[in-house]
Amino acid sequence: MHNTPLGPVVPTDRAISALRPLPASAVRLDPTGLLGAWQERNRTATLPHCVERLHEHGNLANLHRVTGEFDGPFTGWWFADTDVHKTLEAALWAGNVASSEAAPTAGNLSSFVAETVQVLEKVQDPDGYLVSYFQAGHRDRQWRELPSSHEMYTAGHLIQAAVAGARTAPGDPAVQQLLAIARRFADLLVERFGAGGEDAIDGHPEIETALVELFRVTGHRPYLDLAARFVALRGHGLLGPEGRFGQRAYYQDHRPVRAASEVTGHVVRQVYLLAGAVDVAVETGDSELLRATERLWESAQATKTYLTGGQGSRHRDEAFGDPYELPPDRAYAETCAAIGSFQWTWRLLLATGRSRYADELERLLYNGIASGIGLDGRSFFYSNPLQLRTGHDGSDEDAPGERLPWYKCACCPPNLARLMASLHTYAATGTSSGLQLHLYGRGSFASAGRAVDVATGYPWDETVTITVTASDDDPWTLTLRVPAWCADARVSVNGVPGSFVEDGWVRLERVWRPGDRVELVLPMPPRLITPHPRVDAVRGTAALARGPLVYCLEHADLPAAALEHARTTGADPSGQDFEHTRTTGADVSGGDFEHARTTTTGLPGHDFEHARTTAAETAGGDFEHAPDVAFEDIRLDPGVPIGVRRDHPLAPVALVVNEDLPAVPYFLWANRGPGPMRVWIPLVPTTPPR
Amino acid sequence: MHNTPLGPVVPTDRAISALRPLPASAVRLDPTGLLGAWQERNRTATLPHCVERLHEHGNLANLHRVTGEFDGPFTGWWFADTDVHKTLEAALWAGNVASSEAAPTAGNLSSFVAETVQVLEKVQDPDGYLVSYFQAGHRDRQWRELPSSHEMYTAGHLIQAAVAGARTAPGDPAVQQLLAIARRFADLLVERFGAGGEDAIDGHPEIETALVELFRVTGHRPYLDLAARFVALRGHGLLGPEGRFGQRAYYQDHRPVRAASEVTGHVVRQVYLLAGAVDVAVETGDSELLRATERLWESAQATKTYLTGGQGSRHRDEAFGDPYELPPDRAYAETCAAIGSFQWTWRLLLATGRSRYADELERLLYNGIASGIGLDGRSFFYSNPLQLRTGHDGSDEDAPGERLPWYKCACCPPNLARLMASLHTYAATGTSSGLQLHLYGRGSFASAGRAVDVATGYPWDETVTITVTASDDDPWTLTLRVPAWCADARVSVNGVPGSFVEDGWVRLERVWRPGDRVELVLPMPPRLITPHPRVDAVRGTAALARGPLVYCLEHADLPAAALEHARTTGADPSGQDFEHTRTTGADVSGGDFEHARTTTTGLPGHDFEHARTTAAETAGGDFEHAPDVAFEDIRLDPGVPIGVRRDHPLAPVALVVNEDLPAVPYFLWANRGPGPMRVWIPLVPTTPPR
Repeated sequence: MHNTPLGPVVPTDRAISALRPLPASAVRLDPTGLLGAWQERNRTATLPHCVERLHEHGNLANLHRVTGEFDGPFTGWWFADTDVHKTLEAALWAGNVASSEAAPTAGNLSSFVAETVQVLEKVQDPDGYLVSYFQAGHRDRQWRELPSSHEMYTAGHLIQAAVAGARTAPGDPAVQQLLAIARRFADLLVERFGAGGEDAIDGHPEIETALVELFRVTGHRPYLDLAARFVALRGHGLLGPEGRFGQRAYYQDHRPVRAASEVTGHVVRQVYLLAGAVDVAVETGDSELLRATERLWESAQATKTYLTGGQGSRHRDEAFGDPYELPPDRAYAETCAAIGSFQWTWRLLLATGRSRYADELERLLYNGIASGIGLDGRSFFYSNPLQLRTGHDGSDEDAPGERLPWYKCACCPPNLARLMASLHTYAATGTSSGLQLHLYGRGSFASAGRAVDVATGYPWDETVTITVTASDDDPWTLTLRVPAWCADARVSVNGVPGSFVEDGWVRLERVWRPGDRVELVLPMPPRLITPHPRVDAVRGTAALARGPLVYCLEHADLPAAALEHARTTGADPSGQDFEHTRTTGADVSGGDFEHARTTTTGLPGHDFEHARTTAAETAGGDFEHAPDVAFEDIRLDPGVPIGVRRDHPLAPVALVVNEDLPAVPYFLWANRGPGPMRVWIPLVPTTPPR
Repeated sequence: MHNTPLGPVVPTDRAISALRPLPASAVRLDPTGLLGAWQERNRTATLPHCVERLHEHGNLANLHRVTGEFDGPFTGWWFADTDVHKTLEAALWAGNVASSEAAPTAGNLSSFVAETVQVLEKVQDPDGYLVSYFQAGHRDRQWRELPSSHEMYTAGHLIQAAVAGARTAPGDPAVQQLLAIARRFADLLVERFGAGGEDAIDGHPEIETALVELFRVTGHRPYLDLAARFVALRGHGLLGPEGRFGQRAYYQDHRPVRAASEVTGHVVRQVYLLAGAVDVAVETGDSELLRATERLWESAQATKTYLTGGQGSRHRDEAFGDPYELPPDRAYAETCAAIGSFQWTWRLLLATGRSRYADELERLLYNGIASGIGLDGRSFFYSNPLQLRTGHDGSDEDAPGERLPWYKCACCPPNLARLMASLHTYAATGTSSGLQLHLYGRGSFASAGRAVDVATGYPWDETVTITVTASDDDPWTLTLRVPAWCADARVSVNGVPGSFVEDGWVRLERVWRPGDRVELVLPMPPRLITPHPRVDAVRGTAALARGPLVYCLEHADLPAAALEHARTTGADPSGQDFEHTRTTGADVSGGDFEHARTTTTGLPGHDFEHARTTAAETAGGDFEHAPDVAFEDIRLDPGVPIGVRRDHPLAPVALVVNEDLPAVPYFLWANRGPGPMRVWIPLVPTTPPR
């Protein structure tokens, strides 16, 4: 077992691994930077909030039911224990153990860890089983409903909490106790489902990656073997053809990972499974399996990923949907799915060292993940749509108009907590030949005697200054990621410009001295992004971005005057394009064709009357009769400059379009009360140059 | 009780009623016309199919469980009895009673009616209760779960079956027995929930319209009073704030009908409720309530209705969704919702006599309803999307790629059966001053000694010839609906042209003689319809229509060559609009704005590489690199003539666009195997005239 504090995902020395994570103690994010501020908010607001909610919503009482200390009913979903385990994991990544000198003073987090471990010890069955729902009142169903029971999913989250403890404070007694609890459950799984045991898998993946991580912490090979077995068993219909959703693709049991051609079904299940498959592949040296996960990643990115990095196009089944089915308003884009995608992508970055994966980590973090949590750190989105309409029907719990403090299915808040608590470990990696920076946050990063300080206002500012603070006498390479959105990055070392961008990296190899200073400039002109032509739902629109941030228009920024302006400039029905359509429309006749006279705007008299109140049949010219102006009428004129505004009340850098419409970073939306929002903005009919 | 056979919805003489339904015996649809053919197919294929499926899927066994004649488990949903009741209703509208001279010979339908009535008699509790799920095994839950139990919904469908019998064969012994059964259940409801009883409503409306219809058949006022009470009680939170869906708007219990400003929640519940509210309003003379239903109808049409007349934009909750949230691919547009909308709209037509409602009946019938049933009459869609994608994930039972023979929730097939069985009664109405034709089907229609024959190939042909076959000596008015889609209808009487279209009607008043001949020509040029600008999901597209029919492109009609052609002409990235964007985009700089250089297609080098595989970020110019051509790439050039083709294997009249792409009527889609389809077709970037 390691004695240096480590973070999530630490491949063994024999693993396929192009890059290595840095020791958690060798990386620090400064709270004055955005990433560090998020981590600080997590420690002081989100984590205590989660613990309070576990008390309030009965998750802890569910455990006490098993020990007989509580005699009320079970509360919440049958996998409610996982909210406890994830909060525990987050508290442990944040260093909250009683024995730790680094233990923070915030509230009762250390005692939460200590007390919860004691409870888990008491709740656990002698054979290692620990799922409170089935232990008290539903013993007859134990192990009998694997497609839906989430028992191994629950074991997985327990194991990951123990791994977090073992990585951050291996000597802490409570951590040692927790690790023993987790191992007992894992040993039970090995006994029951290992080679020669039952051929079975859990309906919800998660145990796979947990077992590999436990193997990494303990060196106990049977955990890895069981994870490999679960990955191999999946895709053969073991979960049966039936169930609420009727189809195996829902839980990825229709085709083995190796043979799958696209991501399908429930998004979180799919991405958790593939994260586990990468873990298995790299630890077993299975490069074929690794390639399969890369292929699926490319496919998902190409056809089933939102501009924000979010995934999941359907509320029904919380599922991916069809290729190019990417509705902005009904985007599911679950926060947990983005976190799962982050975990999967991080593993691929470590395995392959490709900048593409680091780019995606950045996109996810600043958009699809960050949008899941409010400025207060105590409110959360479950799904992260790219549009909220005027008159939104938010009667789905997972599609409210603003962030909620908690959910009946509260998977997302503690998932955010555990990611944010370990965020510093994802910013940089090391190899024997040097140090690689992936996420530019203010802080310090070190590896094997080589250390740098990073000073930057990123993502608001485009300059990143890296100062070497420690080095040995050998040459080594400082590798800096250049995001794919950045067209003309500039680098200088001690004031001397130079070096090329290659494969998304700038590689600076030299003998470094303390005090050496690298300046990386990543120009961030506002970008107008048009969608892929096959994405029907956002045809004829464009989105705004700057640097890694996707922007949005939000109702709070749009006074009535702006709406009036937008209506006038944006959708004037007397514009040339409409004229044109009307003219050519009426010319169509003769030849082999009969009666092709009525086209777009050719509906006369009483038909027009009818069209006015029929949503789907109204022709363009009817627009001038619209009785009210809604947020949806906002149009963007691509000929008008897009500017940068630095005095916006919500965002350090806002964009300004059409001279008076401010756009704010997507992740900040809905922090000023509920109201309409849109990422994809309709373009005006283009008037061509003469 | 009437002795003349009647159809659904026969307001009493005191009701608010601008138009009156014709006696069922006075209307006949000829099976050589489309409407008559549908009705004939319903009798010979759909109805026997439904009866077979009721046996096969256990609906009838569920009833026998209560009497002890079957000891297996209950099958299906707790409201499975309603499939029996709706099939019974359909069989009775079709005249299948043992005693009827008009009883058709098809299969065992008459014996199905007789036997089912005998079973229902045996199953019914002494107090009138009759819901087999709760009667056998779930007595403890009886009447205790009204938000979800569907008990009164089930009673409603039982009552409607009895009403169908009483209207078509009041003297038949089995019908009299069925009516007595229905009345016993209705009397139980009056006793339990009538004035002075429990303040309660059913989570799923349906009982309201059933009780009014039962009042109309029996003259027993307490049934009407109870219906009025249910309508008045709704909207006050009686169903509680909780439940799976968490919000009262789901079952329209958040606001009374009178105060509601828009349709919300579960579509079928909403439209059934409003059909019942119209019934209550017209029978109680409550014009305020009637106006409220009209207002909601206008609102639904303006913002929550598809081009096909379909309603319901969300799979989740089977719900309406937000205003202008009308995705074509994830359209729910449940067949039952379209049927419910038809029922609601028919009631408004009778009450007000406005042509607008008749137009909507036509649109629904030929599009959103007809698409629900396959050419074979034995396969059905539950939801009716306006687009099916390449690579469609059809793992939702209600979103398969082709029509299924039955569903776990089999509400739609027997609902289609009962509508089709009574279809002839919706084609025309009568008043003391004349006869009104609404749906142009080949057949004959009579009222009070005035009769006409209708000869037409409508909706394929544009000419409708009406010959008077009986008349008295007084002048009367033959009123013909002129659809709103028809720009220049022409009418002649005995070869003499004339008359105006007013409010959507041509009114021909004169002394009619047998042999008088009216020719109505409804020109049907193909129409290119552009969507309302607020409907984001179909921006930049157009739909094809001809006459009352919405058309679609279907994969079966598109050989590889056509796809190739479409790609070349439709989406050439070198077109002028893209050029223009690139040019103006690069000009944007200076002034108050910094860095606004990168726009639409300004992504250079390696970013382009990245964009290729990132669905949502790919710029237009990337299109030429697309590795394969999918159905989604089809584009429409609005400058190319749209023609009519009469030799298509599927449709008597197909449309032809871009010279070689056939479009078929939407309702006929998916009759040639599963495959992509689209109603809204992307338009090419328009090259403007010089």
